[in-house]
Amino acid sequence: MNQQQKASWIWYPGDYEHWLHRKVSVLRQFRGYISPPYWRLDSAYSNVAFRKKFNLQEQEVLTLAVQGSFVVLMDDDMIPVSYEKKPITSIVIPPGEHVIKIMAYTDEAVPAIYAYGQTVGGTDSSWEVTCHDGDWKPAACWAFQDIHQPPGEFPFAYETVEPVSVKRYGDKTVVDFGRETFGYVTFTGMIGTGKVILYYGESLEEALAGEEAETFDELEVDCVTPTDYRTQVTRAFRYIQLQLEPGLSYKHILHEYEYLPIVRRGAFRCSDDGLNRIWEISAQTIHMNTREFLYDGMKRDRWVWSGDANLGALINNYIFFDADVVKRTIVALRGKDPVTRHINTIMDFTFHWFHTLDDYYMYTGDLDFVQACYPKLLTLIEFCLGRRNAEGMMEGLSGDWVFIDWADMEREGEVCAEQILFCHCLDISSKFAGLMGDAEHERKFAELATRLREKIFELFWNEDKGGLMHGRWNGEIIERLLKYPNMFALRFGYLSPEQQDIVRRRVLLDDTVQKIKTPFMRFFEMEALCEIGEQHYVLQEMKRYWGGMLDLGATSFWEEFDPGLPANEQYDMYGGKFRKSLCHAWGAAPIYLLGKYYLGVRPEAPGYARYCVEPKLGELEWISGEVPTPHGEVSVYMDASSIRVTTARSGIGRLRFNSKTLPRASHGELRQVAEDEYELCLTLPDHAYTISLT
Amino acid sequence: MNQQQKASWIWYPGDYEHWLHRKVSVLRQFRGYISPPYWRLDSAYSNVAFRKKFNLQEQEVLTLAVQGSFVVLMDDDMIPVSYEKKPITSIVIPPGEHVIKIMAYTDEAVPAIYAYGQTVGGTDSSWEVTCHDGDWKPAACWAFQDIHQPPGEFPFAYETVEPVSVKRYGDKTVVDFGRETFGYVTFTGMIGTGKVILYYGESLEEALAGEEAETFDELEVDCVTPTDYRTQVTRAFRYIQLQLEPGLSYKHILHEYEYLPIVRRGAFRCSDDGLNRIWEISAQTIHMNTREFLYDGMKRDRWVWSGDANLGALINNYIFFDADVVKRTIVALRGKDPVTRHINTIMDFTFHWFHTLDDYYMYTGDLDFVQACYPKLLTLIEFCLGRRNAEGMMEGLSGDWVFIDWADMEREGEVCAEQILFCHCLDISSKFAGLMGDAEHERKFAELATRLREKIFELFWNEDKGGLMHGRWNGEIIERLLKYPNMFALRFGYLSPEQQDIVRRRVLLDDTVQKIKTPFMRFFEMEALCEIGEQHYVLQEMKRYWGGMLDLGATSFWEEFDPGLPANEQYDMYGGKFRKSLCHAWGAAPIYLLGKYYLGVRPEAPGYARYCVEPKLGELEWISGEVPTPHGEVSVYMDASSIRVTTARSGIGRLRFNSKTLPRASHGELRQVAEDEYELCLTLPDHAYTISLT
Repeated sequence: MNQQQKASWIWYPGDYEHWLHRKVSVLRQFRGYISPPYWRLDSAYSNVAFRKKFNLQEQEVLTLAVQGSFVVLMDDDMIPVSYEKKPITSIVIPPGEHVIKIMAYTDEAVPAIYAYGQTVGGTDSSWEVTCHDGDWKPAACWAFQDIHQPPGEFPFAYETVEPVSVKRYGDKTVVDFGRETFGYVTFTGMIGTGKVILYYGESLEEALAGEEAETFDELEVDCVTPTDYRTQVTRAFRYIQLQLEPGLSYKHILHEYEYLPIVRRGAFRCSDDGLNRIWEISAQTIHMNTREFLYDGMKRDRWVWSGDANLGALINNYIFFDADVVKRTIVALRGKDPVTRHINTIMDFTFHWFHTLDDYYMYTGDLDFVQACYPKLLTLIEFCLGRRNAEGMMEGLSGDWVFIDWADMEREGEVCAEQILFCHCLDISSKFAGLMGDAEHERKFAELATRLREKIFELFWNEDKGGLMHGRWNGEIIERLLKYPNMFALRFGYLSPEQQDIVRRRVLLDDTVQKIKTPFMRFFEMEALCEIGEQHYVLQEMKRYWGGMLDLGATSFWEEFDPGLPANEQYDMYGGKFRKSLCHAWGAAPIYLLGKYYLGVRPEAPGYARYCVEPKLGELEWISGEVPTPHGEVSVYMDASSIRVTTARSGIGRLRFNSKTLPRASHGELRQVAEDEYELCLTLPDHAYTISLT
Repeated sequence: MNQQQKASWIWYPGDYEHWLHRKVSVLRQFRGYISPPYWRLDSAYSNVAFRKKFNLQEQEVLTLAVQGSFVVLMDDDMIPVSYEKKPITSIVIPPGEHVIKIMAYTDEAVPAIYAYGQTVGGTDSSWEVTCHDGDWKPAACWAFQDIHQPPGEFPFAYETVEPVSVKRYGDKTVVDFGRETFGYVTFTGMIGTGKVILYYGESLEEALAGEEAETFDELEVDCVTPTDYRTQVTRAFRYIQLQLEPGLSYKHILHEYEYLPIVRRGAFRCSDDGLNRIWEISAQTIHMNTREFLYDGMKRDRWVWSGDANLGALINNYIFFDADVVKRTIVALRGKDPVTRHINTIMDFTFHWFHTLDDYYMYTGDLDFVQACYPKLLTLIEFCLGRRNAEGMMEGLSGDWVFIDWADMEREGEVCAEQILFCHCLDISSKFAGLMGDAEHERKFAELATRLREKIFELFWNEDKGGLMHGRWNGEIIERLLKYPNMFALRFGYLSPEQQDIVRRRVLLDDTVQKIKTPFMRFFEMEALCEIGEQHYVLQEMKRYWGGMLDLGATSFWEEFDPGLPANEQYDMYGGKFRKSLCHAWGAAPIYLLGKYYLGVRPEAPGYARYCVEPKLGELEWISGEVPTPHGEVSVYMDASSIRVTTARSGIGRLRFNSKTLPRASHGELRQVAEDEYELCLTLPDHAYTISLT
């Protein structure tokens, strides 16, 4: 392996993410118009400096490439390099101790450098970088390891896909690619003069609707010899209605599927084929939305939304375990200082940012990333603290969007669910402050969290009504029982066992409480139910709700689904006939639920240093699958008579299961922890444990 | 006049300045290498929205152009405009009340719009704009009033200049343009194949030094028919040594002088031709450096330095009175939040920013601009307050440059001059807080200023030594008497009459105190001397110091001048033989001094609402000139026997002068205010007052 292969393009931390996020944020198109987001888009610093100290026995030649214009300093003196003449140049470093500094500038891309020497190796995070704020940090790098390919276009993979059918519907021609997909469309051998219109449809109905379709493209063709034409922007679709002006013809229509090349490490199979299909469609749905960042949905916004990303990241833990996309998403969402508005303008989405970072740390154990984010965590939590009302609670100020969910609820005043989400941000901030050795903030945030939690329960907990009330407005408690505050309180461990039981009965399993219509909040609802052991109920719900979309022909899961709606209203949303996104990341919840609550694998210490395996059949005959961890996969199989677990390469597992009979383990000592409940400590790495339950 | 002529391109306040500042900051070249500044370069927001509410009797067509991609919303609904097809489009607004919102995005320029309608008029600051920080502000506009010319390239003026001579010096050919100039070089009728090298010289010596010259250009020529060639970047020079490879020839060499088209409104003439020449060369010097921003010098940095800009802005008040360039400079220097370092990394240059804003307000009375700057004034003063030491004083922290002047002095610890500069920032912040109705900050900053001023005098004032001591380091007073703290204390009115007298004798007029070698600090030194009535002494100094540069052949004034140096070392600086800038803004101090202390015109209330005219002959036979104000020029003539003052179109003047005999006035009532001192209230606008002194 030569040194060149060991070098990476390096840049100022966050620069690539901000630059990329800005680029993708304006790809949204709506019926031919751009639709930029209504929040600030930050970008890379245009003017940065890189440096490294070398201590050489002998002279060394450093090969150098720079994205941007630049100047090289050795021990603070400029040294001549003919940078304007060639993209790759070289510097001679004499023996002894020398500091090489490269100042780089560009306003069109991410300022970045790539360098390597025979003995000193290549650019990596051992180089330091500054944006001239008085601070030097370790440089960032990622997938750009070719000196000729500086950080820019995102490195997607592509696959050419042929249509499964081209059919006539009356006078309309519709091409079907068999399932929801994303990318470009190519016509080979196009000939003639005129316009080709492509009306895209996530559903057949949308494609057939022509002008009413949410997205379309027009190609202007003018050629006398057969020529290939490709669309200019990526689109999400399954169907395309084609309209060619007379005299135009082509040979083939093909689709170039664009995707993030990541490996499915998680898997789930079981005795129920419907559920297997739900898992598979969930996998396709989350993969389609896992790209530069964790997106909401591929047809419409293609924006990075903090709430959606929170779920996307949790789902990712049970299938790709791709840390990079989560880190990119967290950095892009947070943006640069100063914080002037809530993330995505939504108060609860600011809170979800903390939760995403916390989840990321729990699953990966990546403290370096937490450390890199910590200064911006502080400015974000201080922004929130500065917006509390006189009671110390968060309410929507002018310009704040109080969202929670697409649902009928009061949004003014002190919404209880918002206080609970915020309180957990304070918990997280305190925890991270402690990990950073910042005792002052650790104490401050912990105290604030305690006080707020006490206040929440004092004000909103109503034993008679059966849980936490919705909120308070103008000093009056809004005595309405909704699932949101209760399921979040459960999620964050804020409920006593007695309160949990009340919430289970009076909120989660009570059919008279307002139903949740988005997979977004159904995610947390199902999670809460699983947390209190309702796996059987949740399984039926999954089959009914996600299976309900499949019954309607879905090949990916949706932004919103109300099983009660008539079929011809199913694609309606936001006042548009086909505005609903049919491939929405938060629709992939079953991957998370099945991995965490049926295969039952979850970290109990950051980065799976300790983890739990608590498989539940939920009345299935058998389940089987893998859950990725930083140290390889944990495999789980369970049926009525046995459990098999193959441990990860590192970390201490804890297998927990129910059994009416006395179980036997192939290795280790089983411990009874309650009536019919047993635990086995999984101490051996990469080992296949078998438990016999009969 | 049609509506189109009344419209301006509009953008988010500060965007054009930040974008432009970033562009010009990387024009610095040093011997062929770029040399970006070592501070953060901010840029325009890429994603902004404009809006305006219309209330129409009848339907109106709004013609629209946008720099960037965009979408138009009416009452929050998208309306179709075929923006991709034409640069200029139109929107139809129906009768009634409607809000038009235009969301614009570009990462390559300043997002901007231009619109007009027959009855509603054109885009101007009555439109609002947001960068999506939750706040809408009045849009900014400036000189871009042509729908086909969106804000971009700076609107300079050009003039073609022929050389005054082309001479041989041994084997070298040198073209002389007669005086310091700035711009491009054109060769007409170039023919042949090979390289042309241009070695630029602000001095003949520099041009002749060839490779040692600070700037040079190379043109690669390859043509068989006569062709015109122009250099690619602007340069500052008087001389060019030309080297043409054999076989190359051209017809003419011409220079394209690039400059800001502004009018000289100030003037000064007197009985001393040397002084008249100093004023004229000062005028050329300041004009050359007054461009997109107020620059330091044109050969080398071409950066915006806060200290230099402070002087440049003061000088501008007595010649161009161009508010725009001062505003652009203040905005660019301040940059965006968050503040992470001192302006230009220099502690005192942060302080000079406050002083520049304060001076700007005093001369123009432009409270709107102060208001626009106020949020950033607050974050900057808070940044400073956060860096005080335990004693409440400012000392250089890691990465801070403590500059004051190019001079031998201790820079560690608590430098007295820095405390004085900072103390005045607190005065200014308090004053502006008061003007903004921000009583809390007004009180806070005033208290801090009072406490700091007391502390300064308690620690540093030493009656025996004759003034304020230099500083304190490690708890020990540095008992060194330098001009800096004393002249600044005088400038800001911190000295009692007794202290002023001590400073005059022991510091300002004492030849044993370390001399100042830069026109930068000579500016404040001369000002302080004038403030205590030493106009005669200052006149002699001007003739000696600035005249000394003229004696050495200067056609513009320099960055540094030590009359004591031998001629062949005069261009040395920063360790380079020709690195000294020979056209440096701060060299133009005489314009300010002659206008303010000889013609004697200065504002006494913001925007010259009240002003003083206090002419001093300084032993000249006569002086005559004009000083610009927001309400036209004030003209002053004075000789031994008479004074003539023509007042501005608005504002109340106060003429003050000395006379041994009883004077007579053509109008108004003369008032004796002290022995041989008289005052006349100039109440009539645009009126020629005559005072007879004999």
